[in-house]
Amino acid sequence: MRRSNGSRDDRSIVDAAHATAPHGSDFLQLNAADAPPGGLADWLARRLRLAMADGRLPIGSRLPATRVLATELRVSRGVVTEAYRCLSEDGHVAGRGRGGTVVVATPLPAPTPTPTPTPGHRPTPPPTEPLFTRTPGTEIFESLRAAPARYDLTPGLPDLAAFPRAAWLRAERTAFARLTPTALGYGDPRGAPALRLAVANWLARNRGIRADPDEVLIVAGVAQALTLLGQVLPRAGIHEVAVEDPCSLGTRQQLRDWRLATPPVPVDADGIRVDALRATDAPAVLLTPAHQFPTGVVLGGERRRELMRWAEEHDGLIIEDDYDAEHRYDRPPVPALRAMLPERVCYTGSVSKLLAPALRVGWVLAPPRHREALTAAKRLADLGNAVLPQLVLAELMESGELERQLRLIRRRHRRRRDAMIAAIRTHLPDATVHGAAAGLHLMITFAPSAPADTTLATAALTHGVKTHPLSWHAQRPHPPGLVLGYAASTPTHIAEAIATLAKAITDH
Amino acid sequence: MRRSNGSRDDRSIVDAAHATAPHGSDFLQLNAADAPPGGLADWLARRLRLAMADGRLPIGSRLPATRVLATELRVSRGVVTEAYRCLSEDGHVAGRGRGGTVVVATPLPAPTPTPTPTPGHRPTPPPTEPLFTRTPGTEIFESLRAAPARYDLTPGLPDLAAFPRAAWLRAERTAFARLTPTALGYGDPRGAPALRLAVANWLARNRGIRADPDEVLIVAGVAQALTLLGQVLPRAGIHEVAVEDPCSLGTRQQLRDWRLATPPVPVDADGIRVDALRATDAPAVLLTPAHQFPTGVVLGGERRRELMRWAEEHDGLIIEDDYDAEHRYDRPPVPALRAMLPERVCYTGSVSKLLAPALRVGWVLAPPRHREALTAAKRLADLGNAVLPQLVLAELMESGELERQLRLIRRRHRRRRDAMIAAIRTHLPDATVHGAAAGLHLMITFAPSAPADTTLATAALTHGVKTHPLSWHAQRPHPPGLVLGYAASTPTHIAEAIATLAKAITDH
Repeated sequence: MRRSNGSRDDRSIVDAAHATAPHGSDFLQLNAADAPPGGLADWLARRLRLAMADGRLPIGSRLPATRVLATELRVSRGVVTEAYRCLSEDGHVAGRGRGGTVVVATPLPAPTPTPTPTPGHRPTPPPTEPLFTRTPGTEIFESLRAAPARYDLTPGLPDLAAFPRAAWLRAERTAFARLTPTALGYGDPRGAPALRLAVANWLARNRGIRADPDEVLIVAGVAQALTLLGQVLPRAGIHEVAVEDPCSLGTRQQLRDWRLATPPVPVDADGIRVDALRATDAPAVLLTPAHQFPTGVVLGGERRRELMRWAEEHDGLIIEDDYDAEHRYDRPPVPALRAMLPERVCYTGSVSKLLAPALRVGWVLAPPRHREALTAAKRLADLGNAVLPQLVLAELMESGELERQLRLIRRRHRRRRDAMIAAIRTHLPDATVHGAAAGLHLMITFAPSAPADTTLATAALTHGVKTHPLSWHAQRPHPPGLVLGYAASTPTHIAEAIATLAKAITDH
Repeated sequence: MRRSNGSRDDRSIVDAAHATAPHGSDFLQLNAADAPPGGLADWLARRLRLAMADGRLPIGSRLPATRVLATELRVSRGVVTEAYRCLSEDGHVAGRGRGGTVVVATPLPAPTPTPTPTPGHRPTPPPTEPLFTRTPGTEIFESLRAAPARYDLTPGLPDLAAFPRAAWLRAERTAFARLTPTALGYGDPRGAPALRLAVANWLARNRGIRADPDEVLIVAGVAQALTLLGQVLPRAGIHEVAVEDPCSLGTRQQLRDWRLATPPVPVDADGIRVDALRATDAPAVLLTPAHQFPTGVVLGGERRRELMRWAEEHDGLIIEDDYDAEHRYDRPPVPALRAMLPERVCYTGSVSKLLAPALRVGWVLAPPRHREALTAAKRLADLGNAVLPQLVLAELMESGELERQLRLIRRRHRRRRDAMIAAIRTHLPDATVHGAAAGLHLMITFAPSAPADTTLATAALTHGVKTHPLSWHAQRPHPPGLVLGYAASTPTHIAEAIATLAKAITDH
C-alpha cells in the first residue's frame, strides 16, 4: 500500500527510511498552541527542522500532506505550505509530485558555539598560528575548514543540501543494469566513452562548444587538470603562465608547485588587461572569462577579441577555467573562449559547482598539440577516473536530470545572492560589492584606509564567520576586501552571518 | 506480494528489473524436447545464457524456483539445479536465499570472431605495428585491451562478473542516509575518515598490520601510490628504486617516468635475492613479498629477516606492493612486511583485485618521514579521492560484506586456477608452471630453445588468445614464458583458451 503511493522518483530514498510514513495524527506531538502568536509557519518549520536534526525525521521520510497536517494542527493550510516552502528553500525537503514531500537532507548538528566577546573579556585566541597571513601554504584550506565557526561564507561551494541523492542512486542503478563486467576492469585513461560523449553534448548545449568526444579528457576536477598541465607545459617549453590579479590562490599554488612562474596581470571592469598581458611576454595565460574569480567581472567583447589576437600573434596558449559559468542569473552566460579558438584554448571545467566538489570529476579539452601529453600524464597519474561515478554522471547529463538540477540550484543561488547583497547594504553600507549576477560568491572591498583584510578575516572568524581575505588571492596590492560564498547557506543563515560579520568589523 | 518474498538483500536489484517475476509457465518458451540427448543441464544453461545476453532476462530478474521449472519442463529437478550451478559458477546468477536465484551479470555480447588460420591462408596480420615488442610504451596495455580476441588471459583482473552490485547499491544508500551536506564539499586530501578507519581495521584483520587511521592515505589505486612516490622520493634524495626481476612492467614504467632508476634484482624460489639487492647499493627497493609478480613465489622467512637487516643497516626504504595478498588458496597469506617494520616499510594496496580496478581506490601507509610529503603530493594531484565511493567501500568493509565477497571470489578463483593448471598439463605438457597457490595469475615458462615469448604471444593473439610475454616484465634475459590471468574467465573458457593457446604454439 505505502509503496504504491510512492512515485518512482523517491523509492530509493524511501526504501532506506522509515517503515511507516507519518500520517499527521499525533505527528511529532506537535501542538500549535505552543506557537508564538503570529509566527505559526516559522514555528512549524523550526519544529520540523529539530525533528530532522535529532533523527525523528530521517532522510527519506515523508512529511504528511499539507491538508492532513493542517487539519490535525487546526491551522490554515497556508501555514503548512509556507513551512514546507521554507524547508524546501533551505534544502531539507523536496517535493516529489505524487510522492509527497520527502526529507532529503537533515540539518547539520548544532555548530560548536564560538565564544562571543563580551566587554572586558578578550575572545580566546585560536590555539595554533594565525590562519590569515599574507603567504598561506597549500594546507591552508584544510586548516580553515577545520576551524570551528558558526557561519561558513568561504567561496567555492554550491548548495550541497540540494545534491540530487535520489536521482544519483537511480542513475547508478541504471548504470549498473547496462554495465558489462569488462567495464569494471582497467579502462581508457581518458575516461569512460559514455561520459566523454555526455560532456561533449553538455558543453555544446550549455557553453556553445563544439567538440568531438575524443577531444574530452576526464580528470579528477580542475585541480587535477592544473596539475597535469603543470607537468606537461614545461616539457613543451612553457615555464610561465600569466594569471589574472587577483586570481584563485589554489590555482596559483597548483601552478607554482610545478615551478611555473605566474606573472600577475591586472583585471579591470572588462576583465583581464590584455595590454598588460602582452607586456609580461608569457607564452600562456590562465583566466576565468565567464565570471572572473574573485572579482566577478565578465570578460568584455572587445577584450575577448584582443585576447584572441594576442593568442594568434604570440602563438599563445589560453587556459580557460570555466569553473562556474553555468551559474548566470540575469542572462545566458557568455560562450566559452574555447568555442571560438579551439586550437589555442585549453578549456577546463568540472561538476564541483554544479553538483559537489567531493565527486572529483572534471574535464579538459586541450588544443591538439597538448592532447597526447595530457593523456599520458593522466595515465601516469591514476590510470583514469573511477568508472562508476562517470557512468552515473553521464546518465544524469543525458537524461536531462543535470539540467533540471542546474535550473533548481540557479534559482536558489540567485535568492541567496540577493539575500547576501541585501544584508550587506543593511549591515555594511560602506562596503563596495563587485561582480556580475553570476556564480557562487561575491567580493566586497573597503576603503584603503580600512585595516588589512587578513585582520578583518581574523576578526570575522573570532566572531564565528569564515571568509577569505581578498589578499590571499592577489599578488599585487589591492584595497582590503573579503570574498564571500553564498551558495551553500540559506538566506536566513546569510543574513545572520553578514550581521555578525558587520559586528566583528565594527567591534574591531 | 512479490516484494514480501524478496529478501532485503536483493531488493535494490530487483527493483530495477522486471515488473513480473517469471513463474515457470511458458518460461522463455523453453521446450526440453529441443535438447540434445544426455545434455539437458548444458542445454538449459545455454538457453538461459542466451536469454540473458539478448535482454530477455535482464540483471535483477529472478529465475523460477528449481522445483517449478523442473515440473514445467518435465525434467528432473537435478537438471535445473545443475544448470543454475553452472550459471552461478560463471558469475551470471547468484543465490539470494529466500530471494531465489537472481541474474546478477549478463554474458558479454558475442566476441568478434577472430580469423582462424586455415592451411594455405596466412592469418590477416594486425593492422598496426606489432603489439609484442621488447620495449613497449606506456600505452601498451590500452593497445592490448583494444585488440580483438576471443580469450583474454591477460593478468591483473579479478572475477569482474562477481562484483557485488546489489551490495554496492545498498551500501551507497546507507552512506547517503548518513551523509551530511558538508561531506559533499572539499575534504581531507588523505581520504574520508570513515574509510581510513575501515582500511586500518581491514589491514589489521587480513594483513596483520596495526596502524592508526591517521597513517592511512587513500589514493586512486597503487598506480597513483607509485606516482606520488615518484614525486616525493627524489625530493628526499632517493633516485634509485631497486625492483625484482622480473617485476610488473607497469610498475617499472611508473617509476621510470619520474626518472627513478630501477636496477633489477634477481628472484629465486624464495623471492628477491637480498645479497644481490645489497650489491646494487640502491637506497630503496620495491617488491611484492606475498605473491611475487609475475613468478608467483612467496618471500621466504629467512629472506624476510635478511631484508629487514638490509633496511636497518642501510637506512633502506622498502616499498611493499601488496597487490593480491588476500588471494591465498592453500593457507593464510604471510603477514605483510609492514607489520614488522613500520618505520621502514611503505605499504600499498588497493581494491583492484578484491573488487574491481575501475573503482580506483587504494591506500598507502608510509613511514613517518615520508607521510607529510605524500599528503602534500596527493593534495596537489587531485585534492583527494572522490568521497562517495570511499563511504560505500567503508560500509562494505565494516559490515563484513567485503570479507564475504573475498571468501566467494577466493573459492571461484581457486577453481579457475585448478582449471588452468589442468588444461596446461593436458595441452602444454612441456611448459613449467610457476608459483604458489595464490593470486589471480600464473606464469609458465618454456625450454630456452623455444621461440621468443613475444613471438609466442603474437601467435597466441593471432589465434584469439591474449597473454603477456614474460619478457615484458623482465629487465634481464629469462627463458621464454607467458603470464596468464585466470581469475576473470570461467573454467570452461579457460580450458578452451589453453587448448587454443597450445594449438597456436604448436602451429607456430
